[in-house]
Amino acid sequence: MKIIVDAMGGDNSIEATVNGSIEAVRESDLEIVLIGKKDLIEKELNKSNYDGDRIEVIHTEEVITNNDSPTLAIRRKKDSSMVVGFNKLNEGYGEAFISTGNTGSLLAGGLFLIKRIKGIDRAAISSLYPTRNGMTLLLDMGANVDCKPEYLKQFAIMGSTYSEKVLGISSPTVGLVNVGTEKEKGNMLVKESYELLSNSDINFYGNIEARDIPEGIVDVMVCDGFVGNVILKLTEGIANLFFSTLKEEFTKKASSKFAALMLKPQLKSFKERFDYREYGGAPLLGIKKPVIKAHGSSDAFAIKNAIKQAKIFTEKKVIDKIEENINKY
Amino acid sequence: MKIIVDAMGGDNSIEATVNGSIEAVRESDLEIVLIGKKDLIEKELNKSNYDGDRIEVIHTEEVITNNDSPTLAIRRKKDSSMVVGFNKLNEGYGEAFISTGNTGSLLAGGLFLIKRIKGIDRAAISSLYPTRNGMTLLLDMGANVDCKPEYLKQFAIMGSTYSEKVLGISSPTVGLVNVGTEKEKGNMLVKESYELLSNSDINFYGNIEARDIPEGIVDVMVCDGFVGNVILKLTEGIANLFFSTLKEEFTKKASSKFAALMLKPQLKSFKERFDYREYGGAPLLGIKKPVIKAHGSSDAFAIKNAIKQAKIFTEKKVIDKIEENINKY
Repeated sequence: MKIIVDAMGGDNSIEATVNGSIEAVRESDLEIVLIGKKDLIEKELNKSNYDGDRIEVIHTEEVITNNDSPTLAIRRKKDSSMVVGFNKLNEGYGEAFISTGNTGSLLAGGLFLIKRIKGIDRAAISSLYPTRNGMTLLLDMGANVDCKPEYLKQFAIMGSTYSEKVLGISSPTVGLVNVGTEKEKGNMLVKESYELLSNSDINFYGNIEARDIPEGIVDVMVCDGFVGNVILKLTEGIANLFFSTLKEEFTKKASSKFAALMLKPQLKSFKERFDYREYGGAPLLGIKKPVIKAHGSSDAFAIKNAIKQAKIFTEKKVIDKIEENINKY
Repeated sequence: MKIIVDAMGGDNSIEATVNGSIEAVRESDLEIVLIGKKDLIEKELNKSNYDGDRIEVIHTEEVITNNDSPTLAIRRKKDSSMVVGFNKLNEGYGEAFISTGNTGSLLAGGLFLIKRIKGIDRAAISSLYPTRNGMTLLLDMGANVDCKPEYLKQFAIMGSTYSEKVLGISSPTVGLVNVGTEKEKGNMLVKESYELLSNSDINFYGNIEARDIPEGIVDVMVCDGFVGNVILKLTEGIANLFFSTLKEEFTKKASSKFAALMLKPQLKSFKERFDYREYGGAPLLGIKKPVIKAHGSSDAFAIKNAIKQAKIFTEKKVIDKIEENINKY
């Protein structure tokens, strides 16, 4: 199986994508197509002494940055690593595509160049949210800031299909993010979505309050992209604040510094529990091919995991299954 | 000045409200009117050896619980501590009202029994959100799950007036919670609200991403009540998860237990930074009298702080100022 990787997207993209690809081919029988500035990619491959033949490099001149207008960039930057990656995916040169780049462009590219699955009104970006019990798939995390109830039902179908096939959860529960657990709670969107979800074949858990999100009481959570984006970014912000404040408190005095040093393994293990890198990337759901958005600050480890995730995404024929379920549920 | 306190609302309400009231009268010249089951309140007063004359008790038989339907309870439970509290407030028996009870009922009581300020379409519940830099006033935190742009503008005016008068911040900045910082980002509600806020006399900071909420980069944050509720409850949920996971990691082994014990003061100071109890309660803004919702699990310390907050709320004539600003901005 061949996975296409955009080498030009993220903060430390080339180093991370090249090394993540090397680790992935070493640990599996995958082939990787790296797309981006050939000289920079090859420099990195040489630095890591890679001399195998399962990593191919395709040269592109242009780069889509986070400052680009998402849709315009996809239309105009025809020789960007992202657009070429999508085209290669579309023509079947590889099975799946991974990029750390501009999320809006990746979504636009998925919609314009790969197209939506029949029966799906909106593609969603989903994310694996780390909880006390492992992880919950959250969607939409920002692609659709204004939603209709039908979209949320479709997110639920796509999310539970992905959760079952890629994460291996049988009959995953789906929760609807709401301001209370009672059936009659919520805004207009959520109340109508509740009805739709209740009357479907989805394993609908009911409403889930934000307080319970970190507890991981459901396998999949659905909400509109505005709320999903707030959930994801707020979690990131709180984690940043907590870790830096903790560090500040622990290094105030020499004695506390010493005690904190003794606790280093525990602090590390604590941090790792909430490490997004473990969980690969955010699958774009609703389009006709497997596309994964990897975090902008992904390192090699995160990229390797995203590649492995793309492999399962492809192998398990998630997209065929979504198309099947969308008409059935 | 006389403050009315509902003694029957929260989890450990009578004990907390009685002892919080005792502490408040000891530290100020306030008078307190405690409303609820007289025998239970007096038992608690005796237990604490209170023998002053600045705490009055008004007996009521009924209690509004969290299982009551908010509006029905306000209409039907005429002899409940909450309804009697509102009536006493309305007739000027006291200057402000504090309750730890059912938030929905408190809002319904504020709207039906106290009424909205002229020019305000919706009352909001605001909350002090602890950040790296102190605290940010967040509204609405759940009263209005479906909003129009004008409501968000009114929240901004109410919030900045409260922030200036009660929290002592001169010309407070107001941020609009959004999925990105750029002007053109957001859902329909937020985009239109951005226009309204930009063209007002409010000290409008612009959009604020959820990632930056814990950093405290603005003094006031506005959003619809659905998003506000998610922000508040998610923060609570993440804090719970972090503290319990940290404890778990630190008590895994005898050696780490010992080191953690050495760090106890630092861990305590860390926890205190995010302690809602310091900040009193959540003011109901938009109605004609000062009403504060104290947290359901408030202890005496939190109640004392809510009483002090009610004092400033009253002294600074926040409600007159809101009425003035709503026509001006």
